[in-house]
This record gives sequence, structure tokens and C-alpha cells, in this order.
Amino acid sequence: MSSNYLSFRNSVPWLILLLETLFIIRSYFLFVRLDGQYLLHNSYPEFQDVNHMVIFGFGFFLMVLRRYRFSSTGFNLLIIVLGVQCSVLVEDLFIFFYPGANEGILKSIGKAIISMTAVIISTGAVLGKINLVQLIVMTLVELIVFYVSRWINRTFLEVGDHLSLMHVHLFGAYFGLAVTSCFPEPLPGLDKNRSTPKSDLFSMLGSVFLWVFWPSFNSLLAESKTKAILNTYFALAVSAVTAFMLSALTAKDGKFRMTHIHSAVLAGGVTISYAAESISHPWIAMILGLLGSVITILGSHCLQSCLNPPLKIHDTSGVHFTFGLPAVLGVLAQVVLLVVREWTNSSSLDYLVLLHIGAFCQTISIALITGFITGSVLNTRLLKIIPVSKYFEDQFYWEFPHLAVGF
Amino acid sequence: MSSNYLSFRNSVPWLILLLETLFIIRSYFLFVRLDGQYLLHNSYPEFQDVNHMVIFGFGFFLMVLRRYRFSSTGFNLLIIVLGVQCSVLVEDLFIFFYPGANEGILKSIGKAIISMTAVIISTGAVLGKINLVQLIVMTLVELIVFYVSRWINRTFLEVGDHLSLMHVHLFGAYFGLAVTSCFPEPLPGLDKNRSTPKSDLFSMLGSVFLWVFWPSFNSLLAESKTKAILNTYFALAVSAVTAFMLSALTAKDGKFRMTHIHSAVLAGGVTISYAAESISHPWIAMILGLLGSVITILGSHCLQSCLNPPLKIHDTSGVHFTFGLPAVLGVLAQVVLLVVREWTNSSSLDYLVLLHIGAFCQTISIALITGFITGSVLNTRLLKIIPVSKYFEDQFYWEFPHLAVGF
Amino acid sequence: MSSNYLSFRNSVPWLILLLETLFIIRSYFLFVRLDGQYLLHNSYPEFQDVNHMVIFGFGFFLMVLRRYRFSSTGFNLLIIVLGVQCSVLVEDLFIFFYPGANEGILKSIGKAIISMTAVIISTGAVLGKINLVQLIVMTLVELIVFYVSRWINRTFLEVGDHLSLMHVHLFGAYFGLAVTSCFPEPLPGLDKNRSTPKSDLFSMLGSVFLWVFWPSFNSLLAESKTKAILNTYFALAVSAVTAFMLSALTAKDGKFRMTHIHSAVLAGGVTISYAAESISHPWIAMILGLLGSVITILGSHCLQSCLNPPLKIHDTSGVHFTFGLPAVLGVLAQVVLLVVREWTNSSSLDYLVLLHIGAFCQTISIALITGFITGSVLNTRLLKIIPVSKYFEDQFYWEFPHLAVGF
Repeated sequence: MSSNYLSFRNSVPWLILLLETLFIIRSYFLFVRLDGQYLLHNSYPEFQDVNHMVIFGFGFFLMVLRRYRFSSTGFNLLIIVLGVQCSVLVEDLFIFFYPGANEGILKSIGKAIISMTAVIISTGAVLGKINLVQLIVMTLVELIVFYVSRWINRTFLEVGDHLSLMHVHLFGAYFGLAVTSCFPEPLPGLDKNRSTPKSDLFSMLGSVFLWVFWPSFNSLLAESKTKAILNTYFALAVSAVTAFMLSALTAKDGKFRMTHIHSAVLAGGVTISYAAESISHPWIAMILGLLGSVITILGSHCLQSCLNPPLKIHDTSGVHFTFGLPAVLGVLAQVVLLVVREWTNSSSLDYLVLLHIGAFCQTISIALITGFITGSVLNTRLLKIIPVSKYFEDQFYWEFPHLAVGF
Repeated sequence: MSSNYLSFRNSVPWLILLLETLFIIRSYFLFVRLDGQYLLHNSYPEFQDVNHMVIFGFGFFLMVLRRYRFSSTGFNLLIIVLGVQCSVLVEDLFIFFYPGANEGILKSIGKAIISMTAVIISTGAVLGKINLVQLIVMTLVELIVFYVSRWINRTFLEVGDHLSLMHVHLFGAYFGLAVTSCFPEPLPGLDKNRSTPKSDLFSMLGSVFLWVFWPSFNSLLAESKTKAILNTYFALAVSAVTAFMLSALTAKDGKFRMTHIHSAVLAGGVTISYAAESISHPWIAMILGLLGSVITILGSHCLQSCLNPPLKIHDTSGVHFTFGLPAVLGVLAQVVLLVVREWTNSSSLDYLVLLHIGAFCQTISIALITGFITGSVLNTRLLKIIPVSKYFEDQFYWEFPHLAVGF
Repeated sequence: MSSNYLSFRNSVPWLILLLETLFIIRSYFLFVRLDGQYLLHNSYPEFQDVNHMVIFGFGFFLMVLRRYRFSSTGFNLLIIVLGVQCSVLVEDLFIFFYPGANEGILKSIGKAIISMTAVIISTGAVLGKINLVQLIVMTLVELIVFYVSRWINRTFLEVGDHLSLMHVHLFGAYFGLAVTSCFPEPLPGLDKNRSTPKSDLFSMLGSVFLWVFWPSFNSLLAESKTKAILNTYFALAVSAVTAFMLSALTAKDGKFRMTHIHSAVLAGGVTISYAAESISHPWIAMILGLLGSVITILGSHCLQSCLNPPLKIHDTSGVHFTFGLPAVLGVLAQVVLLVVREWTNSSSLDYLVLLHIGAFCQTISIALITGFITGSVLNTRLLKIIPVSKYFEDQFYWEFPHLAVGF
């Protein structure tokens, strides 16, 4: 193995050490004391749900590659803990300048974990093609850019805190796609990026896990928690049903395809995330869940056969159709619902619609532009890209002292 | 493969679409608005426990067959979401006619999930032998019949809401047995319906998962939650201990048998489900847990060697002794406890005992009769049964684009 | 197989039966009635977190041995349920003599589950080398000794209830080490005590599971729950980051080693357990998390290469560096923090420091002495030790009716 890779490996721990030192030092100077912290007691179980879901559920969900399971789970934990610390301290810095905004650290961590979902979704797109140094750089850049994008949404486009956070799927998916478009494609004959029945089973269990906790995710910051929980539940239920229906309709022989089910059962949760707290009739949530699932499965067909090959985008775990398209649909649905609801009050309607569409355009364009820039920077010689032949390989990062049996 | 199976497969998505359209349309006309919904905040974590347990835990628990793991998890999710929607709308219809009965949608969904347990238990008996169309038909029929049975119990036999719901194990087990008795037996030499160490391990993890959440299950609707939780915990603890004891006593060589442990650790939770909220002394709960475990393991021995072969019942994951027998014991125990408690008050005693025994007989006979009818209908040419040689086979339902490695 | 092993196996169920009968009889005479029990409703989700974590998480965490997964999960459940019953009844006996101390059964069970963590940690040290009779005897002895040690701490050394319970890691690790030092070492060429990639993955998932629930564990009895939760979260986050950093620095080639990550991600939670409720500045928690992780990984290097071979200690899953050393560091940290905080108030300082160091010395010396005695007793001919060649072997305890495929 050439000295390049060795020196890359040797740089990983120092990068981590540098970051961690920075976090501890900033925490020393900036952090609010814990004494004054109060805890709305009810908020702990919900925080715990989200924490459990993101760390454990996404770790499972990303185990789609046969030789990349150590890295999927391990690096997922590493970037979440780095990202949460970074995010809490960015928020802390913000509170330092605008003292009124303090809402308690537990809520900050909850928001940080939800923000990290954007990074994890992006990770799904470049899974196995990006080394750890690049992954950490991407995590920090993406988190800060997402924070800036949310700040623009909140300050200039009058989007509430909850809604601005729900752009996380949209941002994560398109940022990840822009980054992955800068990476060379894997070799065509490679079988390392195929799944095995076992990895399919694991990632299906991860999907089911995320499915169960998604109502907690969508309702963590919602003002009307009950509505958000119930609408999300109905949307998820319908999208799970639709996933099975469409998978059988589109696959040859009428068999189900696990990758369809795997991504489409969650589509309803993503689609409803914007509108969940404002929908009063469950049938609307159900229709949205149905449409989310439809767009995911049709999108997976069209993208994989038509769009991705000419654009040269290789999206390892299909985040475009799993999170990107349902999120776009969700924004559209929210605008349509707004128009229907405020139809009589036409004076403010134009303005509100403009704000929503503006927030959408701002988020997606920032995601694409900064994602593309990040991808280009990550691909420079400085950050030492992995050779294409080493893609999707746990052994590149982990010691394997085991005999080669039964894996 | 003959055109019969192709046409079966092609009918699955249309059946699902039809059902889902029906649900959405009925939800449009009937559903209560969400605006008036209030949420007892404390009820969400408990609801979440039950939701997590049924969807994730039973998905694991049913992974007993070596080549049927995709279907076990996937179809479990599908029928739960179909069943919950069906159940909520049946309840909704009921509220439409009797408006006073409204208790909030979250509680309805919770009850719907618990009702679905009956279907999942029945699924365990016919696991791998029933195709998806049959499974969906069975789900809907069983849910509606269970609803009718509960309504009879509540209206004519003065059984409370909680107790009528706790008949779910009894109903599910005997309905499933009646259905499976109509299906042809698997070929004797087949090894597909044996478990592997790995599938045993998965289903043991599923059992442990269910074990942990069982107190939430038994206390969701209970009036005296504390008692229900504590009694269930003690009964489960004793039945786990007894499971190990009896497994070593009954197996040759004094070794443990995983299938014993797998089913008997839960027996205490099933046995105590009726009486959990009314027992004041934990030692009674402990005795019940012990008896539940005893009846499960002895039942598993007797049934598999004596009773099932002449009756020609093939019960894939042993629901008769895992859920059926402990539930019968639970009803007996409840009657005995009632007699002991109300001994002095002999005027109302006869009447109360009669009501309890009546509810038991009504539930079990409806389960057996309708289960037998359902099984017979499912076995007609119309619903295109699977040939016996295709039993227990994931590849019959799922695409396997994988190379055949490492599964 | 000689008649010795057969007779050992035949003694297991009778031992279990004896214990269970004892528990039920004592529960009949001593148990407080459930009627007077009230349940602080908020305490159930936290209790459930700890229950879930200990039963499910440690079951996964201990699956490090390739041929010992049935026993890891199964025996974990068995000893927890035995231990919890034993512990509740010891507590009950205590309440019988000192009636004022009653705090409700749910809290007793919560404390019992946390106490059981000591036993599970000790189990980690002797995993695969101890038969079930020995394991049950060890469980009961260790629980009672830990109870006595806590009572001494509380009564004579003025240690609070929460803090005395947090000695659980220290006690468990050193008790386990003392027991394992009495057992013969496994044969050097054996590959049964190596892990496979799959068992590493399972135990990593167990670690992540424990990681997620650790804040609930550290805050169950804490007076200032918010602080305990937040400090634990920060310590865990930093120790996960540090684990990756140090694993890459210490391993050759800069690769990560799964066993390092596996044990060091939890070190922060163990280190902070004593001081979590009294730290006001998160940076202190972060530093402690960092030091905990450092001591775990350096400890794992030093112990495995220098200290263990001369001392002839074979510590199957590395509990010395995973739980023992971080707990020692935690006690030191707590004393240092106390000195810093109470510096001005020098009159009571000496006394307080003395009490803390006294509690530490008392706990660790009781653990070592009684552990050594227990180990010696367990190794007598009476309890029929396993031959070294049968170490780490599921087939010694479990029936394997499976064909030998795919495991």
C-alpha cells in the first residue's frame, strides 16, 4: 500500500483531536452553566426517541453494503457525536450574541441531532466512496451551511423554527447528490456495492426501526404535537401499504423488491414533515403518504434507468428518491394546502406562498451549490481520495484480526 | 411457473389498492377532525412502547424460519398497517353511530395495535403456508370478527374494555389453529421449516424484546396501571426462570432447547394479562407466571407428540402452546381469583363467574368456528393456494438479485 | 461425556426450582401489598429505559464470542430475572426491619436492575469459562455482597443512595477479575474465544444500544436529573470521539480496531457516573469523557501485553479496562472536583475527602476479597468446573437440532 494512504490514516486521529480540543476549549469559554438549566420533564422521553432513532436506526439503515457494515455503524456514531458537539457550540455562539434565544441545552441537543440527519442522509449518497477525513470535513461544512440556510429562512423568509428544521431531508439529499457527482463512479463489474440478503434484511430492520420512531422525529419541535404525531402515523401507514403495492406492480413477475420497500415505507414520513402540524383531516395525510410512496418508487425507476447515467451520479443508498423527491413533494403539498386554506384571504396569500417557495428555492440551491463546491474540494489531492478499487471496503479502515470465516 | 401463480401475484397490488382507496374514502367521510383531539401527554410514550413492540418485536419474533425472514418482517409490517387502518375505521364507524364513545384517536390506534396482535399470533400458526392474498383476507376477517366478539363481550357479558381486549391471545391462537387445520401439511422430509442457529438467535432476541415491553402491553388500558405493570413484571420474571428450569428437565441430557425458552419466557405475560390489574399480592402473580411457563413447555411436549399428529394440525411457530394454553390458564386463574375474593358475597358470585366463563366460551368458540370457515374459504381454488413444495420460501414472494452467497 | 457433566446438568433445574420456591415463599410472607403502591407516572419511561438497556443491550454487548451467542443472551436474561427477584426480596427484608425506608416497588426494581449490572459486568470477565450452576451461585453471592457493601457505604461513610449505587461498575469489574483469576486459563491455540466480524458487529450494536441509554442509567436515582443526563451525554460524546482517535493512533497502519471502539465508547459514561449530578460546567464532563476513553484504550494495551500474563488473568470481554479502570478514574475525578469546589471551606474538606476515599477502598477491597473467595469456592470439585477444552461452547449447554449450516 502506498505511503499516501498511510499518511492519510495518520492524519485522521490528529484531525479528530484538533476538533475535540477546539470543542472543549470553546465549551470552556462559551458554554452556559448547567445550574440554571431546567428540564421540561416530558421532553426527555421524546429526546431519547430521536436520539435512539438517529444513532441506532440510521446505523442499521445504512448497512446496505455487504463489506461496509463496520464503517456504516461506526462512522455513523462518530460523525453524529462530532456533529452534535459542533452544532451545540454553533448554537451556543449564537446565544452569546443574541442572549434572548436560549431555550435549554436539551432542546439544543435535540435540534442538533435532527440537523445531523441532513449529514447522515448525505452520507448515504457517498457511502463507501469517501474516506474518513473527507467525511469529517463534509460533516462540519454541511452542518454550518445548513445552520446558515436555516438562519436565512428564519430571519428573511419568516419560516418558523420547526419548519426550517424540517428542510433537513431536502438539504441533506441534494447536498449529498452534489457531493457524490464530483466523485468518480465505481467500476461497473464490482460486486462489493451489491447488497446480500443479509444486508438487505439488516437495512430493512433499520427501516422498520426508523418507521416506528418517525412520529417522534416529526413532532419534536412541533407546536401542535398531537396533530403532528397522528398525521405522521397515518402518512407512514399509507406509504408502507403503497410501497408493497407499487413494488409488486413495477417489478417483473409481481414479486416484491426489498430495496423498494426499504426506501418507500419511510417516504410518507418525509413528505408529511412540513405539513404534519397543520393538517386537520387525516385523509389529507393519507393522500400525502400515498403520493410520497408513489414518487419514491417511480423515482427510483426513472432515476436509475434514465437520469443518473447521463448525469454520472452514483447514489449508493438511493437518497435521491428516498429523501429528496418526497421532500420536494412535501414542500409542494404544503404550498397547495396553504393556498386552499387561505383562499378567501387573498391579500396575504401571495406573500405567504412566495415565502414558502422562496425558502424552498433558497434551501435547495444552497445545498446544491455548496455541495458541489464541497465535493470539488474533497476531491483535490490534498484530501487523498480513495482509489476506485478500494470503494466499499471495510478492510481499508478496520483491522480484521479474524480468520476469514462465515462473513 | 404456471400462469396461476403469475395471476395470483398480479392480483396482490390491486387488492391492496382497493383496500387503501376504501380506507381513504371512508376516512374522508367519517373521520373525526384532528383539531378537537387532545393528547394526554403521558400516553404517548406508552403508545410508542406498544407500537415499537408489536411492529419491531413481532417482526423479529417470527423470524424462526431459515428461508422466510424477508416475508416475516415485511408482511408483518404490511398487515399491521392495513389492520390498524381497518380497525381505526371500524371504530370510527362505531363512534358515528354511538357518538358518546369517542376517546381520542391515539387511544383508538393503541387499541387497534393491540387487536392486531391477534392477527399476528394467527399468522404465526400459518407462517409460510399462506400467500399474501390469503393473509390479507385473513387479517380483515379476523379483525372484524374479533371486533364483533369484543362487542358481544362488552354489551351482553358486561366485560370491561380492557379485559375484552386481553382476550386477544386466546382469540388469535385458536383462530390461527382453526385456519391452519384446513391447510395441507408440509412435506415430511422438508428442511425449510427447520430453524437454523441464526434464526433461533434472531427469534430469541425478538422474545427478549417482547419480554421487555410486555408490561406496557398489559397496562395500556388498565385502570390501575401500577398494579398491572408490577404484576406483569413479576409474572414474566418467574416464567423466564421456570422456562430454563423445565427446558433442562424435559430435554434429554439436561441441555436447554432454544424453542422452549423462546416461547416460555413470554407465557407469564400472557397468563397474567387478565388478572394483572386486580392482583394485590405479587406472590399470586409469581405463581401464575410459574404455571404459565409450565403449561407452555408441557403443552409443547404433549401437543407435538400426541395431539397434533392425529388432528393433522401443523402449527409453524407453536402459537398453541405459546399463546393459546397460557391464555386458557389465565381465564381459569381469573375465575378462581374472583371466587376467592368474592366468597363472602355469594349472591353476585355465581353471576360474575357465569359472565367470565361465558365470555371465555363465546370468544373461543367464535374464534374456532370463524377460523375454520375462513380457513376453508382461503383454501378454495379462487384464492390460489401455494403448492406444498413452495411453503416457507422467501423466493416465492421476493426478488433475489443477490448472488447466492453467505445467506 | 462423563457422568459428572450429566449430573451437573441435572442439578441446574433443581437449583433454579429451589431458588424460585424460596422467592415465592418469602414474597408470600414479606411482600408489601401492591394496593398502597403509587407510581410517579414519569418514573415508568425511565425505568423502562434501564430495563430495556440492561436486558437487551447487555445481551447484545456480550455476544463477543463466536460460539457462545445463545448462552450470552439466554443466561443474561436468566440471571437478571433471578437477581432482580433476589434483590427485591433483600430490599423487602430491609424494609421489614426499617419500615420508614419504603419507596415503592418500581423504584426497588429499578435499583435491583442497576445492581444486577455489577453481576453482568463480572459475567463478562468469566464469560464462557463458568457453568450455569457456578454462574447462579456467583450471581446470588455477588448481589448480596454488593448490597452489604452499599449498606456499609450508606451507613458508616455517609454516601448517598445514588452514589453508593454508582459503585456498581467498580464492584462488578474487580469482583469479576478476582473470580476469573481462580479459573484455569483457556488453551492458547484455541480459536473459539476469538471474535468473528459478525460477532464484533453484534457487540458493537450492543455498545451503541448501551451508549444511547446510558444517560437514563446515570440519572435514574440522581437528585438533579437534568445535570446528570446532560453531563453523561457530553462525556459519552467525547469518549466516542476519543475512542476513534486513540484506536487509530495505537493500532498499526492507522486502522481502527473494533474491540477498542466497542469498549471505549462507553468509558465516558462509566467515568462520569459518580460526578454527573454535581458538575456545573459541561467542559469538565467532556474532559472526563476524554480521560475515560484514554485510560480504557491505553489500559487495554498495557493490561493485555504486560499485566495480565504474569498475573494469569484471562478477562474474556475485557471488563477491567472497559469498566474497572474508568470507574477508578471516576472516583479520583470526583475527589478532585470536591477538593476544588470546597477549597475555601477547609474544615469539612478533609473529612469529606476521607469519606469518599474510604468508600472507594471499602468497595474495591470487598469486591476483590469476596471475589477471590467466591472464585475459589466455585472451583472446588463440588461445583464441577467445565474442562478447559469445553470453554466458550454453546453446545455444552444447548441442544443443536440444526444441520450444521450457515452458522
